[in-house]
Amino acid sequence: MFSFNSAFEAPSGSPIRELFKYLARPGMISFAGGYPASDLFDRAGLDAAAARASQQPTLCLQYGPTDGIAILKEQLAQLMARRGTPCAPTDLLVTTGSQQGFDLLLRVMVAPGDVVLVEQPAYPATLQALKLQQADVVTVPVDQHGLDVAKLAAVLETGTLRRAPKLLNTVPTFANPTGATLSLERRIALLKLAARYRFVIVEDDPYGDLRFDGTAVPSLFALSERVPGSRDWVVHLSSLSKIVAPGWSGICRALCDALDTHLARHIAFHRPAGGMFVWARLNAARDASDYLRVCIEQNVMFVPGVAFYKDAADRAALRLSFAAPGVEEIETGVHRMNRALEQYCDEQ
Amino acid sequence: MFSFNSAFEAPSGSPIRELFKYLARPGMISFAGGYPASDLFDRAGLDAAAARASQQPTLCLQYGPTDGIAILKEQLAQLMARRGTPCAPTDLLVTTGSQQGFDLLLRVMVAPGDVVLVEQPAYPATLQALKLQQADVVTVPVDQHGLDVAKLAAVLETGTLRRAPKLLNTVPTFANPTGATLSLERRIALLKLAARYRFVIVEDDPYGDLRFDGTAVPSLFALSERVPGSRDWVVHLSSLSKIVAPGWSGICRALCDALDTHLARHIAFHRPAGGMFVWARLNAARDASDYLRVCIEQNVMFVPGVAFYKDAADRAALRLSFAAPGVEEIETGVHRMNRALEQYCDEQ
Repeated sequence: MFSFNSAFEAPSGSPIRELFKYLARPGMISFAGGYPASDLFDRAGLDAAAARASQQPTLCLQYGPTDGIAILKEQLAQLMARRGTPCAPTDLLVTTGSQQGFDLLLRVMVAPGDVVLVEQPAYPATLQALKLQQADVVTVPVDQHGLDVAKLAAVLETGTLRRAPKLLNTVPTFANPTGATLSLERRIALLKLAARYRFVIVEDDPYGDLRFDGTAVPSLFALSERVPGSRDWVVHLSSLSKIVAPGWSGICRALCDALDTHLARHIAFHRPAGGMFVWARLNAARDASDYLRVCIEQNVMFVPGVAFYKDAADRAALRLSFAAPGVEEIETGVHRMNRALEQYCDEQ
Repeated sequence: MFSFNSAFEAPSGSPIRELFKYLARPGMISFAGGYPASDLFDRAGLDAAAARASQQPTLCLQYGPTDGIAILKEQLAQLMARRGTPCAPTDLLVTTGSQQGFDLLLRVMVAPGDVVLVEQPAYPATLQALKLQQADVVTVPVDQHGLDVAKLAAVLETGTLRRAPKLLNTVPTFANPTGATLSLERRIALLKLAARYRFVIVEDDPYGDLRFDGTAVPSLFALSERVPGSRDWVVHLSSLSKIVAPGWSGICRALCDALDTHLARHIAFHRPAGGMFVWARLNAARDASDYLRVCIEQNVMFVPGVAFYKDAADRAALRLSFAAPGVEEIETGVHRMNRALEQYCDEQ
């Protein structure tokens, strides 16, 4: 009989993309998607780049090398150096988004049943890619300083895993969904663990450039120069798709300020120092998915936290993206969330 | 111990890309790559498209639906209708090149050990993708009318395959590397076989629009409307990357004419009615790979036929692409091939 491959027999869609259909509603304010604001795209810069590409059709429009056009790789290496993560052009592989980079890595490295460590909560597409590769996903908890490296060390030391882990995936800077940044001490400890237990750290860094507070912590890739034996165990993924839009700081503070003003009694959260996301929790063990349904009636959206867990989800958690709406919309949106919360509490 | 997935432990590069390094030689004339001529890119059209995209940043530059932007899918459906292969926008999935479409299909449908039928000779990247998916590849011979469907029927009827085939891959129009086009009768017979034996036909059609002689044969996808039970067994892959360049016919005839004039004694070939490729054979059982080495010394290149076989390669075969060089270069290039052939014969 004809059949699909087992991992694809009951594919689950992205819980975030499921919310897409509500986006088209007139007047909807969305804190749901992790998208940059279209208003802030550098259109003049993109136009100039397109015009220059058109002047060099063989270089830019013809088939090119699989690993990326040489001049683009040189520019990317310079960008990486400016970010404090120097690398050689030959170290780089250009992919169609960092998700493709992760997918390729899994296909080359992870066989069905291999143990892969993932922070929890995590980006849902990470969990989905691992599920399709039939990895044995083991979660490691995070707190407001990122991955709990001490807990990870305990798991590795006690040898409770079915197999030695092959890979660990982490968004150490302005994580999705928590917004947390891994501290310097934890980064060094994590690199030591990778060198000792011989697993690959996949450092996913799409948000590192979106800092508006505090000073940058070096990337795991940059730090691996200083931690003996760890260099070969770090793969750094990055993306240009989040950083074409400048100037976030006013927008971010606007969301946190509005949450403080209108929802402080009902919602707890940590102020992030960058990125796109505020990770929050409803007080009194309320369910964020139920709350979302009332919010959608009020024309405001977010992503319930349950989307970011492999299992044992925190049902009170929710993710608010402050990237796409403007400052006035944020104020209006949080107002609506407050009204929805009152309605939701009445219904209980 | 840490290890890569077995299919990736000894990856082989593309034999065509291996020739890339010679492309940079001053004065090299290449009949090797299947690339459109950069001179013929519709730069004004591409510039206008880029400018229009920039006017609609949310639609064109923002994250979009996984299956492709709706307005693009509508345009592609109209293009398919003009090509005689009508389909609904909802039938379409936009991918980064047709090779990605093939790769996704294999991942969803083909498990290690599944039987996949492939024409021989075939496009090397097809063989490579199947190898990485650990498919059991069974080849079906082709002649100047394309896939030998009668031989395929015999194989299916005698039940000599280890398992029922899951998929058949074919380039039925202006095949790579042979340039052959599958006849109407064979197309209908193939669709009947797919319906009867329940395997998916992957119809790869990057070259169908590049016809300069004769009348178009309907695609397998279009014909499947007429062959009962076959519609659900056809996946049609296409690409825009070969058709941004118009006006081939003079160039094609130039290559065949030059071959006739200078090399008729040494090389046999069929004149293709479209596409990018002339598939040829050296007479007297000469080895095209050895001949290529002498040609490279004379600053002219092609791809030896051995690159397109899974096994039992025809070592005298070679593929000449007439897409990239201009008319004058073709004349010069074939001259050089003639000189190289004399030198090669002297060396024997």
